[in-house]
Amino acid sequence: MAEDRRIGLRVPLDSSPAEQVPPALSRAGDLFQLLRDGKPWTRAQLAMTTGLARSTVAGKVDLLLNSGLVVSVGEALSSGGRPPSRFAFHARARLVLAADVGATHVRVAVTDLNGEALAEDRNPLPVSSGPEAVLGHVVECGRRLLAEIHEPLTLLAGVGIGLPGPVEHATGRPVKPPIMPGWDGFDVVGFVQRTLPVPVLVDNDVNIMALGERAHFWADVDDLLFIKVATGIGSGIISSGQLQRGADGTAGDLGHVRVARGEGIVCRCGNVGCLEAVASGAAIAKALSARGVAAPSGADVLALAAHGNVPAIQALRQAGRDIGEVIATCVNLLNPSVIVMGGSVAAAGDHVMAGVREVVYHRSPPLATTNLRIVLSRAGERAAVMGASQLVSEYVLSPAGIEAALMGAARVG
Amino acid sequence: MAEDRRIGLRVPLDSSPAEQVPPALSRAGDLFQLLRDGKPWTRAQLAMTTGLARSTVAGKVDLLLNSGLVVSVGEALSSGGRPPSRFAFHARARLVLAADVGATHVRVAVTDLNGEALAEDRNPLPVSSGPEAVLGHVVECGRRLLAEIHEPLTLLAGVGIGLPGPVEHATGRPVKPPIMPGWDGFDVVGFVQRTLPVPVLVDNDVNIMALGERAHFWADVDDLLFIKVATGIGSGIISSGQLQRGADGTAGDLGHVRVARGEGIVCRCGNVGCLEAVASGAAIAKALSARGVAAPSGADVLALAAHGNVPAIQALRQAGRDIGEVIATCVNLLNPSVIVMGGSVAAAGDHVMAGVREVVYHRSPPLATTNLRIVLSRAGERAAVMGASQLVSEYVLSPAGIEAALMGAARVG
Repeated sequence: MAEDRRIGLRVPLDSSPAEQVPPALSRAGDLFQLLRDGKPWTRAQLAMTTGLARSTVAGKVDLLLNSGLVVSVGEALSSGGRPPSRFAFHARARLVLAADVGATHVRVAVTDLNGEALAEDRNPLPVSSGPEAVLGHVVECGRRLLAEIHEPLTLLAGVGIGLPGPVEHATGRPVKPPIMPGWDGFDVVGFVQRTLPVPVLVDNDVNIMALGERAHFWADVDDLLFIKVATGIGSGIISSGQLQRGADGTAGDLGHVRVARGEGIVCRCGNVGCLEAVASGAAIAKALSARGVAAPSGADVLALAAHGNVPAIQALRQAGRDIGEVIATCVNLLNPSVIVMGGSVAAAGDHVMAGVREVVYHRSPPLATTNLRIVLSRAGERAAVMGASQLVSEYVLSPAGIEAALMGAARVG
Repeated sequence: MAEDRRIGLRVPLDSSPAEQVPPALSRAGDLFQLLRDGKPWTRAQLAMTTGLARSTVAGKVDLLLNSGLVVSVGEALSSGGRPPSRFAFHARARLVLAADVGATHVRVAVTDLNGEALAEDRNPLPVSSGPEAVLGHVVECGRRLLAEIHEPLTLLAGVGIGLPGPVEHATGRPVKPPIMPGWDGFDVVGFVQRTLPVPVLVDNDVNIMALGERAHFWADVDDLLFIKVATGIGSGIISSGQLQRGADGTAGDLGHVRVARGEGIVCRCGNVGCLEAVASGAAIAKALSARGVAAPSGADVLALAAHGNVPAIQALRQAGRDIGEVIATCVNLLNPSVIVMGGSVAAAGDHVMAGVREVVYHRSPPLATTNLRIVLSRAGERAAVMGASQLVSEYVLSPAGIEAALMGAARVG
């Protein structure tokens, strides 16, 4: 039985819960999946839908009521006799601490289990300050936000953290992150759990942006590609309704795909011709500066374009075309129905979007683009905290997560 | 309740079985998933693992025994008293008709539910003969093979068919397939079910090659990319253990990704610079012929290379590099741990594989290639029939498929 480092308890959540938990609890987590729809259920409806005996259902419902994750929500109409009680998922029963660690800022939110933010804060803090400083801030900020809404630490179901670099999914450790000195291999989970002894889930920021965008705005879309264009370029891939991380957690690494216009341009990764080296905010700024237009950063390029600076507008449009070239390949390979463009450069740039659409609709096969939508992120700057919250609630509300929570309650009680 | 066209019965297999079938049957399909491991189980072991009551388990086991999908396999050691019976999955209880329709040949096999071929045949028949001729042959050949092994038609659990073109997954109809005149929108399922009233599943040939290769040789690999290089070029993507079809069923369309060397070369799809237009068997033959080397087809190129013809060898190596360029992008996007190269050109060409490896290992990010294997297909010419069989057995042995089978038996019995 391998220990799951993310939760700090010896409950292996990837294996079948039935093998690990006492039989009396073994199906409450499954039953709970029905209740997650947020609608009220009677015991009779639950019994009919699952095929379980009424008495069995009653026992599971009692367990869930005790945990607080399910509450009684008034009575149903009765066909005679005492009206039956109805039960529903209570999203505020537990809270989530969600953190988005960016290159220069940290955003921290406390949300309910539906990802609704109850308190939120954003502070300047470079990721290069190192893991202790940044994660210490996340924990402290989380405590403060909980105090502000008068909720105790014990209500915390888990912590979700997005980092601006590759993360090994199984351990939550950053793997050779290029812009995060001091973070390589750091035990993020262990560090946070020293103060907050709850499940801690860590992922790449673009992966969780994809999760957040989908959970809140595209819940019925199973094939979604989220592309972040900011200082760097990356993507989060959702296929068949699932976030795809690949064998080593590096799936979606769109910034280092070679593009035609990249010939001869060396990327910070050491390779030549990467998309990021020609179309990221930093790359556009560098190219404009070389042409004598003063633009120290991607933000400056956006400001110039907003004031009608033609070289800046042209550069953004061309970056859009370069990005579109790679997106066209993604459309061939993945056939998504929605492509969401996020990140500061995409968000500010009609010009970028225009360039992307121009190339993708020209280049991709007709069958794959008939129903394809290319849209701006609706979650905007909050996509990553939404996703960090989603990462945790998916985990703790899964059948195995519920079983683990009930076991904990049973041990304490 | 939408009718699932593939099975020709009004049992919607995508929805929860519990809502559709009588409660008495509602968990036999789930129980069966344990038995699929092929090992013998006692009733007590099943009860302990599921947390279900012994009497409930006994009822489900009886249903499965009646269906023939589970058989008694001798007795377990007892700690005293009558030794308990043991049960296991019986893969020969039902049979599958698996067909691989290629451009010029049709391969038909009858397999058990583990994909083991019991009889197989391959005949020349161009797909351009049209759907009635080709599918009529599949049905007739299936009948004949069943007769040869002295098994009745009633033992057939389903039919799986791979076609050399895009297929709409939900309906099994070909969608504007370029090399299949007369097939566009044809009701493959309906046509076959007129003679064989069983579930009929249709998919693109490269998708099922990926399924077949994984089921038989890479069962423990969750992220696998199967690339077919023959007259055309295509791929089947397995991510997180699931075949990915995308929103419109066109995922894996690798042949029409633009490559650097394609500049100015018009593809049969109408676009310019597609991989298939420079690196497929047909494209290599065309390019060699233009250089004065007589090579009417990809097979001729392979024959020339086998005899040491240097231009042919160079052309295959270069095709490998072009393919490698696109595979490097796939590695960035999908991060597979195994890439399987199949199809006649890949199978015969060490030169192609060498070109592929050269570019992929040069171009892809270190983290994504540390554990990456690039290998030749082991299933070879049989990958597609293996996959067609797998498509059907996955479907009929799923919890919902088992419930449907038991309902049928209950109706008849």
